[in-house]
Amino acid sequence: MKNIKLIIEYDGTNYSGWQNQENAVTLQEVIEKSIGQITGEIVRLIGSGRTDGGVHALGQVANFLTNSTIPGEKFKKVLNNVLPEDIAIIDSMEVDMDFHSRFSATRKRYRYVIYNGNMPSPIHRYYSLHYKYDLDIDRMKQGAQYLIGEHDFESFMNKGSIVKDTIRTIYEINIYRQGNFIEITIEGNSFLKYMVRNIVGTLIVIGNKRKEPQDILNILRAKNREAACKTAPPCGLFLEKVYYE
Amino acid sequence: MKNIKLIIEYDGTNYSGWQNQENAVTLQEVIEKSIGQITGEIVRLIGSGRTDGGVHALGQVANFLTNSTIPGEKFKKVLNNVLPEDIAIIDSMEVDMDFHSRFSATRKRYRYVIYNGNMPSPIHRYYSLHYKYDLDIDRMKQGAQYLIGEHDFESFMNKGSIVKDTIRTIYEINIYRQGNFIEITIEGNSFLKYMVRNIVGTLIVIGNKRKEPQDILNILRAKNREAACKTAPPCGLFLEKVYYE
Repeated sequence: MKNIKLIIEYDGTNYSGWQNQENAVTLQEVIEKSIGQITGEIVRLIGSGRTDGGVHALGQVANFLTNSTIPGEKFKKVLNNVLPEDIAIIDSMEVDMDFHSRFSATRKRYRYVIYNGNMPSPIHRYYSLHYKYDLDIDRMKQGAQYLIGEHDFESFMNKGSIVKDTIRTIYEINIYRQGNFIEITIEGNSFLKYMVRNIVGTLIVIGNKRKEPQDILNILRAKNREAACKTAPPCGLFLEKVYYE
Repeated sequence: MKNIKLIIEYDGTNYSGWQNQENAVTLQEVIEKSIGQITGEIVRLIGSGRTDGGVHALGQVANFLTNSTIPGEKFKKVLNNVLPEDIAIIDSMEVDMDFHSRFSATRKRYRYVIYNGNMPSPIHRYYSLHYKYDLDIDRMKQGAQYLIGEHDFESFMNKGSIVKDTIRTIYEINIYRQGNFIEITIEGNSFLKYMVRNIVGTLIVIGNKRKEPQDILNILRAKNREAACKTAPPCGLFLEKVYYE
């Protein structure tokens, strides 16, 4: 028995998110079936975390146990031969048996792309949020500074989560503009349900001058989802990288 | 009767190109029908040029004649309400009756995107050519210099074109790399069938060191399509801008 780690890029547009569920096509299911096709086993693929329907990944990490004799680094090639073209294995390797994609992860980086143009862009429609109103990114940067560090992020967690401990640490938020695009990267130790999208939704309201940057402090203190703003849509979100010790 | 000019962005992935044809969904047809839905007329939409199936546009230009009382600048909004989300009107305006999208055009700019990474990218698969081998962009730039100016581009025109005069002028070719992406922009007075894609296909072979930059001179002199290299696929190509006096 060996433990195989995969680094995965995917276009989440046509999937109901990462995690398996009834009557929906998920990334986990499609990749598990592809592995099964190759090894002849029924495998359980452990992701570093769920991504929601429509969310993309540039560097999702997952692992599975197998008795296959295929060398770890070969899984990249053999899986890419059978996977649909909206999923690609970027890298594969054998890892220690105690490696667990979720529990061993120490840090994650997400990227959120806003297309801040006049009209919705056909070319970028599946890979960005279209937001046509003014956004002052200096205000967004100021607001983001209040989120850095260890905080109770309950106000940024959607209901329906079974998580009890809502303390998380954000290490870094970067916001920059390039032409009509605004990109926000967020690095933290771990994230609550919809946390990145709720942070982005709130930073957009601050950038649009309907809230002040320092309002973030009150939102954090409220520990209530209703204190923060609307969840930004999934299509702008990319899981960029998962870090391990 | 008035003449309306449209500037159009589209994702060409799901269309059999610009120009109407039997048993195929084309951009021209879909936009003509949308205009008809609004004006109640049967209109003929004149594009600045055809784009092939799978080719995208950031700034295609087209015009049509109408008796509608809708002001020129309003067509943007009313058309975007009925067009599918892979087509957007960026701008609309009333123009002189003698404006003709194709005959009045003096210059066009195309952009070609190469994803020069190890693995095909799910995220960028419809909007770039995946090329995994080494590309030396300094060699590509040297090769491109031989194409600047007025030349007979017959070697870069695919067969099946009825065009007799194959003399064209290229004003500018820019090539730059950003991470895994290589972008090539080409500006010229007008382009032959598949000319941009054949130039890109040839520059790729030069970048990969299978031809020398100065081989472009022999290819031009040959006046034979077989002297140039394979046509680059449509998905990496964007019609970026059409210029008028």
